[in-house]
Amino acid sequence: MPNIDDYLQSQADRFEAELCEFLTIPSVSAEPARSGEVRRAAGWVAEQFRRLEFATELIETEGHPLVYAESAPVAGLPTALVYGHYDVQPVDPIELWTSPPFTPTLRDGSLFARGATDDKGQMLTHLKSAEAWMRVEGRLPINLKFIIEGEEEVGSQALEKFIAENAERLACDCVVVSDSAQFARNRPAITYGLRGIAYFELKLTGPRRDLHSGSFGGSVTNPANALAGMLAALIDGSGKVRVPGFYDDVVPLTERERNEFDALGFDEQEFFRQLDVDGAVGEEGYTTLERRWARPTYDICGLSSGYQNDGAKTILPASASGKFSFRLVPNQDPAKITAALRARLTELCPPGVKMELIEWHASPGVLVPPDSPYVAAAARAIEHAFDVPPVYTREGGSIPIVTTFHETLKVDTLLLGWGQDDDNAHSPNEKFALVDFHRGIKASARLWHELAQLSGG
Amino acid sequence: MPNIDDYLQSQADRFEAELCEFLTIPSVSAEPARSGEVRRAAGWVAEQFRRLEFATELIETEGHPLVYAESAPVAGLPTALVYGHYDVQPVDPIELWTSPPFTPTLRDGSLFARGATDDKGQMLTHLKSAEAWMRVEGRLPINLKFIIEGEEEVGSQALEKFIAENAERLACDCVVVSDSAQFARNRPAITYGLRGIAYFELKLTGPRRDLHSGSFGGSVTNPANALAGMLAALIDGSGKVRVPGFYDDVVPLTERERNEFDALGFDEQEFFRQLDVDGAVGEEGYTTLERRWARPTYDICGLSSGYQNDGAKTILPASASGKFSFRLVPNQDPAKITAALRARLTELCPPGVKMELIEWHASPGVLVPPDSPYVAAAARAIEHAFDVPPVYTREGGSIPIVTTFHETLKVDTLLLGWGQDDDNAHSPNEKFALVDFHRGIKASARLWHELAQLSGG
Repeated sequence: MPNIDDYLQSQADRFEAELCEFLTIPSVSAEPARSGEVRRAAGWVAEQFRRLEFATELIETEGHPLVYAESAPVAGLPTALVYGHYDVQPVDPIELWTSPPFTPTLRDGSLFARGATDDKGQMLTHLKSAEAWMRVEGRLPINLKFIIEGEEEVGSQALEKFIAENAERLACDCVVVSDSAQFARNRPAITYGLRGIAYFELKLTGPRRDLHSGSFGGSVTNPANALAGMLAALIDGSGKVRVPGFYDDVVPLTERERNEFDALGFDEQEFFRQLDVDGAVGEEGYTTLERRWARPTYDICGLSSGYQNDGAKTILPASASGKFSFRLVPNQDPAKITAALRARLTELCPPGVKMELIEWHASPGVLVPPDSPYVAAAARAIEHAFDVPPVYTREGGSIPIVTTFHETLKVDTLLLGWGQDDDNAHSPNEKFALVDFHRGIKASARLWHELAQLSGG
Repeated sequence: MPNIDDYLQSQADRFEAELCEFLTIPSVSAEPARSGEVRRAAGWVAEQFRRLEFATELIETEGHPLVYAESAPVAGLPTALVYGHYDVQPVDPIELWTSPPFTPTLRDGSLFARGATDDKGQMLTHLKSAEAWMRVEGRLPINLKFIIEGEEEVGSQALEKFIAENAERLACDCVVVSDSAQFARNRPAITYGLRGIAYFELKLTGPRRDLHSGSFGGSVTNPANALAGMLAALIDGSGKVRVPGFYDDVVPLTERERNEFDALGFDEQEFFRQLDVDGAVGEEGYTTLERRWARPTYDICGLSSGYQNDGAKTILPASASGKFSFRLVPNQDPAKITAALRARLTELCPPGVKMELIEWHASPGVLVPPDSPYVAAAARAIEHAFDVPPVYTREGGSIPIVTTFHETLKVDTLLLGWGQDDDNAHSPNEKFALVDFHRGIKASARLWHELAQLSGG
C-alpha cells in the first residue's frame, strides 16, 4: 500500500491541525451547561464523515446524539464496525493542568488536551485511515460502519438502547475499538480479554437505633461486627473466593498465555513502587499480571457504619453496609454467581440482623479467541505501522459496550489501543503522543486491507 | 428515725417546689451561650448548702465551676462523699417535647423537665436528706462531703483534675452516687459492678490513591478487605474475643451472682421486641444479662472506607478505618490488653497495607464487693424507704468518675439509682417520678443513720 502510506505522510500536518480543532470543543458530557458544546462535537464528527461521502446520520437520543456513518455498501466485502466516543471527562481539578485543557498544546512530542487520548485522538485515527483510502483509491477495500457516541463517560445509555434496537443495521464481521493503551512505549498490544463484573451492596440492619455500647454491648447482634464477619468470610487466606461454585466455569489460563504474560517482562517491584506499597496479597499460584487480567477477584469498594468522625463514640451501630464487586472472567455467569452469593450470605447472616443484598450491576467477561483470523489481521496491520509485532494482553476492567456487541451482534471486538498508560486519561494533563496518533492511522489503514484479504478479496 | 421521716413528709410540697425551681435553670453545659445559666445553677446549689451552714465553696475551673460543701467535721464519725452534677444535656430535638424542657410540668405523677432524673432530681435527694437531719436533730450522724460538678455531660475534665489534686480533702469511707436507675418500677437496685472500656481506631493505608477495581483488583492488597478480615479475626464463632490473654484476668461470675441475675426475671423477648430484633448472638454459655453486665465484649462502633454514597463506584479504596471497643470487666488490665491487641493486629496485617492503631481511651472495670458493710447499710436504707429489699445489679457501661474515686481515694462507690430506665435521660420528655424523688430522700436520710451504725456510733 505505498500510495496510502505516502498520502498519510503528506497529510500529517493537516491531520494534527484537525485533531487540535476537535480538541478545542469542550464536549464534557457530564456537565449539563456544556450540552451545546457536546452537540457541536457531534456535528464536527458528522461533518468529517460527510466529506468522505459516507451516509451520515446525527441520531437524537434522550441524552447526547449518536453519530452513525457508513461507506457505500459493496456486496461480498467484509464489514467492520468502528466504535468510538466524542465526549470527554470533566477537567477538575483544573488547577493541576499545565496548559488549559481545551487549548491543545504541544510539549515533548505530545498533544496535551482533555480528550487527546480518550477518545478523540484515538477515534480520529480510523476516520483519517478511511479518508486516505477514499482519496487515494476512491473506495474502501471493505465495508465500514461507524457508531460514535457522546455518553461514554456517563454510562452509554442511549447507545445500549440503539444497539438493542438496530442489530441488523449494525451487522458486521468484527468491531474495532481504539480507546485503550499499548502495553508500554513502542509495545503495541491487542487486548483479547476483558473481565466482567458483579457489583453488590450488602446492608445489615440491627436494633432500631444506635445503642450505647456499654449498656447493650454483648447482648445485641452488632451489625458492624456481622458485616465484617460476613465480608471476611467471602475470601480465604489463600485468596480464594468462598462462594460455592464460584470457580466452576472459569476458563483457565493456557500454558501459552502464561508464557506470553511472563515474556512481557512486567516489573512487579516498579508496579508496587508506583503505588507506594510494600507488596501485596492475592490468589496463590498466580503472578501479578495473571491476577489482574485473567483471574476473578473480590474487592470491597466501600464500607459505612456508625460513627466515622474524629475521636471516639461508644455506640453499637443500628446498621452497616458494604459495597463490593467480583471481577469475573470468561465463562463465569453473573446470574449463577449472584444466586450462590445470596445463598451464602443468607447462611452467614446471624440472628438479630436483617440482610438486604442489592445487585447494582453485572456483566460477563469477554474473550476474543487469540487465534482468530481477525486478531491475526490486526497483528499484521500493527506490525506494519509500529515495526514490531503486537503483544497479546488482557485487561482487568470491564468495557460493557464490548459485552453488548458480543451478545447482540454476535461478533468479537478488536481492542487496539494506541495510547499509553501514562497518558492521564481522566486526570489533569491528558495527552496523546503524535507519533502514536500517526502510527495508529497507519495501522488502521492497513487493517482495512488485511481484513479485506480474509474474504479472499 | 420517726422524727426524720415525719419531717420529710411535712416538707414534701416544698421539696417539690424547690426541685421545680432548680429545673427552670437551663444549665446546658455543652452550650457556650448558656454558661451564665450553668453558673446560676451552681450558685443555686451552693445556696442550698449555705442554708445548712455547711462550709461551702464555689470552685472556679477552666470550665464550669465545682460546688464543694461539707458538714462541720466531727472526729470519730465515718465520712461519706456524695457526688452529683447540676449540668444537663441539650434539649434537641426540641419539637419532640410535650411540654417545654425548662418549664417543669407534672403529668401522671412525674415531673417532666430536662435534668429531672439526670441528675438534678436524684442529686437533690441527698441535700434534702441532709437538711432533714440538720433541722430535726441539729446535726448529722456522720460527716458528709459533697462534690457537685457542672461538666458531667461534657467529660468531667475539671473534676478529674480537682480529685487528683485534692485527694486528702476528699478523703472518705465511701462515695454515694445517685445518677442511674432502679432495675424496674418499684425494684430499687444497688449497682455493684461497672464495666471498663478500651477504645481503639484501626487505620489501614494501602495504595497512594483509590484505584480502578478492574484494572488493579487482585494485584494489590485492598485495605477494606484487610480491615474486614482483621476486625473479623478478633472474635470467633462462639463469641469469644481472639486476643491472646484476653480472658486471663477476668473475675468470673460467682454462682450466687448468676442465681441473683436469674432471679431478676429479665424478659429477654421483651428486650428484643423493644429493640426490634429477632434474637441475638453473643458469648456462648452466658445469659443476656450476664453478657451485658459481667462479660467482656467486642463491638465495632464505626466503619469507613471508599465509596459510601448511592450507587456503585468501582474502586479499590486507598484506605479503610474501623473504630471499636472492648468493654472490660474486673480485673482486666487495659494496658495489658492494648499491648496484646497491638501484637495480634500486627500479626494479622497483610503485606501491602500500613497499619496505625490509635488508643482513644481506656479505663478498667469496677466491682464493689457485694458483701461489703457499706452495701449492706445501703440495702437496709433502701428497704426502709421502698418497702422492698434492693436487687443487686451490674451495669454494662463505664462511669469514669467512679474509677477515679476508686483509684485516687481508694474507696468504693455506692451506686443507688432512684430513676427508671424509661425516664428519658438524654432524650426528649425527660422525667422523674415524684414517688421516686421522695423515696430517694427517705432512703438517703436512712443511709446516713445506717452508715453511722457501722462505726458503732
